[in-house]
Amino acid sequence: MLAGGGLAVPARVSRAGSGPRGTGDLGIVIERATGSVLVVETTGRTVLGRIEGLGDLSHASAVFSRDERYAYVFGRDGGLTRLDLLEMRIDRRIVQAGNSIGGAISDDGRLVAASNYDPGGVKVFDADTLVEVAAIPAIGAQGRASKTVGLVDVTGRRFVYTLYDAGEIWIADFSRGATPVLTKFPDAGALPYDANVTGDGRHYLAGLFGEDGITYLDLWDDAPKLRRVFQGYNAGRDKLPVYKMPHFEGWGQSGSDLVLPAAGQNEVLLLDLSTLKEKARIAVHGQPVFCVARPDGREVWINFAHPANDTIQILDVPKAKIVHTFQPGPAVLHLEFTPRGHEVWISVRDADRVDIMDVRTRAKVGEIAARKPSGILFTARAHRLGS
Amino acid sequence: MLAGGGLAVPARVSRAGSGPRGTGDLGIVIERATGSVLVVETTGRTVLGRIEGLGDLSHASAVFSRDERYAYVFGRDGGLTRLDLLEMRIDRRIVQAGNSIGGAISDDGRLVAASNYDPGGVKVFDADTLVEVAAIPAIGAQGRASKTVGLVDVTGRRFVYTLYDAGEIWIADFSRGATPVLTKFPDAGALPYDANVTGDGRHYLAGLFGEDGITYLDLWDDAPKLRRVFQGYNAGRDKLPVYKMPHFEGWGQSGSDLVLPAAGQNEVLLLDLSTLKEKARIAVHGQPVFCVARPDGREVWINFAHPANDTIQILDVPKAKIVHTFQPGPAVLHLEFTPRGHEVWISVRDADRVDIMDVRTRAKVGEIAARKPSGILFTARAHRLGS
Repeated sequence: MLAGGGLAVPARVSRAGSGPRGTGDLGIVIERATGSVLVVETTGRTVLGRIEGLGDLSHASAVFSRDERYAYVFGRDGGLTRLDLLEMRIDRRIVQAGNSIGGAISDDGRLVAASNYDPGGVKVFDADTLVEVAAIPAIGAQGRASKTVGLVDVTGRRFVYTLYDAGEIWIADFSRGATPVLTKFPDAGALPYDANVTGDGRHYLAGLFGEDGITYLDLWDDAPKLRRVFQGYNAGRDKLPVYKMPHFEGWGQSGSDLVLPAAGQNEVLLLDLSTLKEKARIAVHGQPVFCVARPDGREVWINFAHPANDTIQILDVPKAKIVHTFQPGPAVLHLEFTPRGHEVWISVRDADRVDIMDVRTRAKVGEIAARKPSGILFTARAHRLGS
Repeated sequence: MLAGGGLAVPARVSRAGSGPRGTGDLGIVIERATGSVLVVETTGRTVLGRIEGLGDLSHASAVFSRDERYAYVFGRDGGLTRLDLLEMRIDRRIVQAGNSIGGAISDDGRLVAASNYDPGGVKVFDADTLVEVAAIPAIGAQGRASKTVGLVDVTGRRFVYTLYDAGEIWIADFSRGATPVLTKFPDAGALPYDANVTGDGRHYLAGLFGEDGITYLDLWDDAPKLRRVFQGYNAGRDKLPVYKMPHFEGWGQSGSDLVLPAAGQNEVLLLDLSTLKEKARIAVHGQPVFCVARPDGREVWINFAHPANDTIQILDVPKAKIVHTFQPGPAVLHLEFTPRGHEVWISVRDADRVDIMDVRTRAKVGEIAARKPSGILFTARAHRLGS
């Protein structure tokens, strides 16, 4: 069952001559050390080719065009690269900032937005041409220029993001054209280091580095108001040294339960979205990094920061209980489920390998060789809000 | 903005010569009177071609392969047709029963199941070859052969369906291979006429024709037990003559609220899935047929049975209130949102037209000519459970 490919794959295999193929089962694997990505398909569990020349891909992320043919890869060096997954090549590439931290694509697929550390702010590009449509500086109410984090797309050609230094949350509404209407929520808390929105585009939460709590915004409210959840979560106990900040991109939703990685504790948190009350704190194997929900939400698979980063734990969400622990190998950096959750792909960086597991049996069913793999992203993300 | 195509479209336009294209923005429009489908794309809002020769397409439905290249169309005459949306042709076609009512595709994309009226039961086919893998008769505990309805896929290569005549719900588990393990729930109520499962594959509900209520099964339970919800819903009031049975395929979920069409009343029902209690009954313009949730779940768009079938109403789910009513035209049979809900396509059968609307502004932005269009189905369904 082991698929071929990997280290021996030609750098740019053109598929143009091999006839038409669908794109719903495609994906990419980020190879962070070499500035390359593997193009993979999840039906036969194979590598279709490798695309090189993407620059610095540490902390890289990606979104997909609505036809699932193109990937937009956001590099740490400010590079924004549009990959053609069918022709297996770089379609366009720009360097749009000095230091970037991710992006989003509008619900109509027309606009790609990038969240920047240096010089800060958000830039928005035409999704077809990568021509700049808007540059939005992030100057908070106190006049402080900010890095931006937690950039997500929501309905109505809107992007929502958080100003790290200024401690604000902004909504940029492009529904009327290229000039956004901005709605600003100041006083969103001290040093919000990451944020995310639930799959329905409703609940936006920002984790705070400078305070003990999480900021919450109900984007469905006619007049959204900032609230705090998990306030004083660490009160009266030691906070562990944080080796790796947990990612809010990797939270898991199951019904009205949201599973969040706790910062500075060997715990994950369950938030009841219907009441905004803490539901449970669950002890886990280490400091959680990604809490990835199975597509149906019944389980959340959790990976951990160094030195526990060889391990994955599986949380049964309705039972609020860890039901399985296993060690895929050294440096488990990311995991991605197939769209309906029958299999899961797991990056094992220091083994230069992606493992593929059957989700029901939890047995390994295949592997792909990859150079220091980190993020794994499948095209089905194109159809989801809040990417 | 009006797209071309429609009645003048060539019957089988091959795209093989036009270079590679993604399949994430494709879809089909069922033309019920002529046994044909239009292949459409939602980025440019155009018709790519027409495929003919699909037999009787009244009440037709479809599922999609996991690469989003193939559509499996279930016809009322028992025909199961695999369409190649890229090559724009019938790839394979079998007549697998005398009278069929829909189907599902397993979470791994390997098995296609069809729900049959005549001779009843469920048949399961290899998704690539359409070779029969299993034929499961539907003989209830009382020995009665049954039509099957409400066939859905859930995790772990399982299908769930309902026996109309016998009043039972069965789970067929194909995780161990071609011979299913059957789990049967007898006493599921009198004449369950349709059923469906929520997008998380958890809550399965079957509407009853022979009783005043809905049967409920929690598929995440370790030992699922049948329950009734909305029992005695019509007690003490007249039931209207039912012109068209409401479709459970067309219900809408928003957070933990489920919006259901009421049978025999000019109402939709709100069920709180966290308590299984009725939350509201909302008066609407006529007898609802489909209650289609916007992909984010914030709104549910409702169409109606004759004589109110020229109208759509929009329900704001959090406010439990109808917020907009409009008349697209004569015989609105179906509607389908683009995957992230920026636009909606609406079949207006007796105008031989599909209308395309901007969801935020509710303005018409395009139309497609089609012959007596009914179901509209986009490839993004490939990535969803419970299709």
